[in-house]
Amino acid sequence: MNRQVLLDSRPQGAASVDNFRVVAAPMPEAGPGEVLVRNRWLSIDPYMRGRMNDAKSYVPPAKVGDVMVGQTVGDVVASNDARIGIGDTVLTSLGWQEYGVARASDVERVDTSIAPASWSLGILGMPGLTAWFGLFDVGAAKPGETVVVSAASGAVGSVVGQLAKLHGCRVVGIAGGERKCRFVVDELGFDACVDHKAGRLPDDLRDACPQGIDVQFENVGGAVLEAALPRMNRNARIVMCGLIAEYGGGEPYAYRGLRAILVNRIRMQGMIVFDWKERYPEARRGLASLVSAGRLTYRESVVEGLENAPRALLGLLQGENLGKQLVRLAP
Amino acid sequence: MNRQVLLDSRPQGAASVDNFRVVAAPMPEAGPGEVLVRNRWLSIDPYMRGRMNDAKSYVPPAKVGDVMVGQTVGDVVASNDARIGIGDTVLTSLGWQEYGVARASDVERVDTSIAPASWSLGILGMPGLTAWFGLFDVGAAKPGETVVVSAASGAVGSVVGQLAKLHGCRVVGIAGGERKCRFVVDELGFDACVDHKAGRLPDDLRDACPQGIDVQFENVGGAVLEAALPRMNRNARIVMCGLIAEYGGGEPYAYRGLRAILVNRIRMQGMIVFDWKERYPEARRGLASLVSAGRLTYRESVVEGLENAPRALLGLLQGENLGKQLVRLAP
Repeated sequence: MNRQVLLDSRPQGAASVDNFRVVAAPMPEAGPGEVLVRNRWLSIDPYMRGRMNDAKSYVPPAKVGDVMVGQTVGDVVASNDARIGIGDTVLTSLGWQEYGVARASDVERVDTSIAPASWSLGILGMPGLTAWFGLFDVGAAKPGETVVVSAASGAVGSVVGQLAKLHGCRVVGIAGGERKCRFVVDELGFDACVDHKAGRLPDDLRDACPQGIDVQFENVGGAVLEAALPRMNRNARIVMCGLIAEYGGGEPYAYRGLRAILVNRIRMQGMIVFDWKERYPEARRGLASLVSAGRLTYRESVVEGLENAPRALLGLLQGENLGKQLVRLAP
Repeated sequence: MNRQVLLDSRPQGAASVDNFRVVAAPMPEAGPGEVLVRNRWLSIDPYMRGRMNDAKSYVPPAKVGDVMVGQTVGDVVASNDARIGIGDTVLTSLGWQEYGVARASDVERVDTSIAPASWSLGILGMPGLTAWFGLFDVGAAKPGETVVVSAASGAVGSVVGQLAKLHGCRVVGIAGGERKCRFVVDELGFDACVDHKAGRLPDDLRDACPQGIDVQFENVGGAVLEAALPRMNRNARIVMCGLIAEYGGGEPYAYRGLRAILVNRIRMQGMIVFDWKERYPEARRGLASLVSAGRLTYRESVVEGLENAPRALLGLLQGENLGKQLVRLAP
């Protein structure tokens, strides 16, 4: 049998475990040109909350009754395509289930001799690539500038801040709670970290950025982005990468202070990493060489077992993870 | 004597004529390297409302008791600099007064054989240049795209829309009232104009932009910008040129729907025309040739007499003008 997690209902407000259902389905079979994959790792990402709503985002929403969507890494157990062999480790998007069938042309082989398989969902995958292109292409960070990163201990933020440090920037994180802030400063090497749960975000952010902010790498939005706006320098950039503060359902956040964008000629730009597909190899090489040289720290938070995937997502949305959140589906 | 309009008090909320005071001052004298100018035209612009507040904007605020700031065109009546002769027409920033003294190096000679002197405050001045660089450099408008311009009948908006039409765009204006909308469509040649006073802005904007919005040239902000956000296409641009809706004092506007910036990879960018100073000549040549070829319509709203400058500004802030608002200070 193939265990699956289905979207059982759409959340009204905050998501809960009741919006999901674990079922046992028949084992799928690979048709012509397809491969059957035993999923080993499931990536848990903030965008998944958006897919649970009945609203168009980058892509159509997940359907109620369908397997929840998500990127996976697993081992090929049956193949009807000459390019992919049994035992190959592949990156694909089979969602929240233990097995899945993909077209061979839709999977990407993962070289596990270079890095552990799970890294292709984290530092060498979407989060790492997002950090790379967001910081350098969208944010256009320059040495000596002050870069602020929200969700600084998360899969994207932790890479953004370290890349910015290596690039010669002053780097300030924003994270929720002392534990995360210590991780960000002590283990990741940020210059400072502001705890947005301490209740003094605007003042603390001002104190942590005596030269103002040149790049705001925004993963959170809401009050966090609002606190950054008045601190931004002339010609500063806001990389709009995520708005996890707005993913909880309810009314969209109402942002005050947009006049700063006019007065200080700020550029605020939304980004989705898919738009850089042709340049993934360049970024992967850059990230891999920094990790293997020990210059980039990479941390994973692992939850065991498919049945715990809903809790992993809810925890991520409440900011419980450090680094990349994964679910291990098979040993 | 030299009549002047002083900032007499800072507005609490909306500005009123009581915030200004007309006085008679002694005639100023030109010192070494200076010129004495009899001001003929005073430019009235939305940014002036911001200067009345005690808040840093692009530049420091006007001081209570000082002559109100503003760009002027006038005739040199005394000169202590060999480069500027008596009778020369010059563009400078002498503010709300009939005479003023400027350093010769701070004035720009205006060639009145090419165009009327007042045009250097309008179509060939800051508003025209703002339209040019905002549309092409910041907005990066491309033929076939839909460009929406708010304050469409104003000094900047009227030029933006006409330039966009000449560039091959579909152009939709947003203006307040039927008269302005008729002007925008019938005289300026926009494809459509939405009356934001009709109370159906989101629906009317959607109907006027069946292909969505690629460039939002924003002069107004507030509910106007908020109505545009959900209509914006992937990779669309918002040119943040003015936020006249927020200039009235009171609380800053609270914008909902910024998530569209993320989902659709929108670029929102603030602009101030000063940043293109080195390229003014190129834009002036472009604008002048279009006007002289009859391809660009230019309209001025003229108020007579310095003492009426406060009313001209208040009228502008309430949207009463069509085209460039000027005060004629001398015949």
